[in-house]
Amino acid sequence: MRTVEWHDGCVRMIDQTKLPWSLKHVELNQSAQVVDAIQRMVVRGAPAIGAAAAFGMALAALEFTGTDPVELQKALQRGADLLKGARPTASNLEWAVERMLQAARNMQADEVGEVQSRLIELAQQIADEDVAINKRMAGHGASLIKDGDTILHHCNTGALATVDWGTALGVIRSAHRQGKRIHVLLDETRPRLQGGRLSAWELAQEGISFEVIPDSSAGHFMQRGEVQVVLVGADRVAANGDVANKIGTYSIAVLAQANSIPFFPVVPTSTVDLSLSDGSQIPIEERSPDEVRAPFGARLMPDSWPVRNPAFDVTPHQYVTGIVTEHGIAYPPFTTSLRHMVELSRT
Amino acid sequence: MRTVEWHDGCVRMIDQTKLPWSLKHVELNQSAQVVDAIQRMVVRGAPAIGAAAAFGMALAALEFTGTDPVELQKALQRGADLLKGARPTASNLEWAVERMLQAARNMQADEVGEVQSRLIELAQQIADEDVAINKRMAGHGASLIKDGDTILHHCNTGALATVDWGTALGVIRSAHRQGKRIHVLLDETRPRLQGGRLSAWELAQEGISFEVIPDSSAGHFMQRGEVQVVLVGADRVAANGDVANKIGTYSIAVLAQANSIPFFPVVPTSTVDLSLSDGSQIPIEERSPDEVRAPFGARLMPDSWPVRNPAFDVTPHQYVTGIVTEHGIAYPPFTTSLRHMVELSRT
Repeated sequence: MRTVEWHDGCVRMIDQTKLPWSLKHVELNQSAQVVDAIQRMVVRGAPAIGAAAAFGMALAALEFTGTDPVELQKALQRGADLLKGARPTASNLEWAVERMLQAARNMQADEVGEVQSRLIELAQQIADEDVAINKRMAGHGASLIKDGDTILHHCNTGALATVDWGTALGVIRSAHRQGKRIHVLLDETRPRLQGGRLSAWELAQEGISFEVIPDSSAGHFMQRGEVQVVLVGADRVAANGDVANKIGTYSIAVLAQANSIPFFPVVPTSTVDLSLSDGSQIPIEERSPDEVRAPFGARLMPDSWPVRNPAFDVTPHQYVTGIVTEHGIAYPPFTTSLRHMVELSRT
Repeated sequence: MRTVEWHDGCVRMIDQTKLPWSLKHVELNQSAQVVDAIQRMVVRGAPAIGAAAAFGMALAALEFTGTDPVELQKALQRGADLLKGARPTASNLEWAVERMLQAARNMQADEVGEVQSRLIELAQQIADEDVAINKRMAGHGASLIKDGDTILHHCNTGALATVDWGTALGVIRSAHRQGKRIHVLLDETRPRLQGGRLSAWELAQEGISFEVIPDSSAGHFMQRGEVQVVLVGADRVAANGDVANKIGTYSIAVLAQANSIPFFPVVPTSTVDLSLSDGSQIPIEERSPDEVRAPFGARLMPDSWPVRNPAFDVTPHQYVTGIVTEHGIAYPPFTTSLRHMVELSRT
């Protein structure tokens, strides 16, 4: 079962707003529905958003009913703009859409139908690659986990945040399957509770020992010596190793350093954005106050309270021990090591 | 209106589990009910718990129906043990109960009735003193707030956490009444949401500008330069200045130091426990996982998820800029300055 996949001319995805209470799928046959699903976080997690957007581009191609390939290119560009605007922070979204667009431009096909079917194939290839990349990352990352370790984890970076397997949770999954006895402290990750709802659901299914903790207690457990390593995902990594990820990641990184605990983001190179020299240029999405006041309809505070709800923060590279990618682990100086990892992806 | 007060032979208190949705009072006429109210957090906040326990001791005296003053002392000791066991971390609870017990012992009264009425008077005096102490602390602390400052605040330390006025929120209240234009970022303070429910309710009433933020975003706002000073309360302060306070305080202190932002706990000297040389000896309460999974009945995650719920953490003194007390602001070295503040209370 994949988080996002192509099925019978539709994009089929797990509706993550319904978890952990029920496992439901939605089938979308219009690219605008994919935009909406990304915005409402029916699908979330940088790599999963990337794959969903690739399938969204395939739908945009299928929506074109004309016969002129030049007009199709224009329609694809309009679809790309809408998809890229769905959420601003994750670089995988832009990366996947641009890859689809570039492929369409390079096809020089005479027939619209041919472009359409080749775009569907490419989107499926992007999804397949994501799973393969995650498994390679997990192999590299698992070397960081020792038997008996307790791992602190933020947000959800599992199969649900990707097409399958996961990034940071993929590392945890692989370490577990290698027979290492591990325990995971899952930040609940307010306001959307991706840790308490989604990561807990995945680890329960996998039979990995875990406990959910309030975000504000992560520092306490680090201080008490209960955490050996911190693993997180990322939504965009700048050329210097600054890491944009789910709100709260920066705090955890600072606390990890204060307690001499290694801190590793686990990211495919599609999350690395070499066009940004540092993290200050990464756009940070602010989401609705209602997500804080009434998560999934559970009313915690009055609608009239003013609320701030930044969805991401930026961890400066000096708090980052290393960055796990599909080509190995990048260590400081990241300006050199990350560029090397990205170049390996291009060859 | 006071958070806790003596009324017609009962302890009357605001039921804080009902806020901000409705302002209801409960009237308790048995000391065991006071124990229960403290445990269920009907009343919470170290100074408010102290006052409630003092009134609880008055009720324990009234519950004694005999005529032998020696037997009364034994009954008071039993009441004291139950009250002190209600919650382990706040030192004010022990402080207030011991003060009541000591007074009863020193009375050498022949009549049970006289002891009873003098204990009621002393409990009222403890409550009155709390308000006076808070206003003095607020005066000292307000000097730390500049016009235009944004203050980061954790948990609730207002009128609701005390008998009236508040500790850290008391400082904010006084700065506001001095005409300083201030803004407050309120950590929502999972799992019990004392920031999002109680502090927001108090600041809305007082007309002080505020925004509620998820706990995990506090570091982000500090990093962005939006916070000028951090003010918190405390539940117990050790002789060396280590501070036990609501879970999440340690994280904020570390983040404040990483961003060169001053961090001030605001505490009456009744919160200072000179018998403990450092914070490692402070007992940390672990509360029910249900508080995390379903706060106030709002079901956020399944009952089957394993959850950790430590209610407090300890901030080492090296992260503490200064400690605001009713006798002025104690600065490092705290071993000297805090002892001086406590001695001023005894004279």
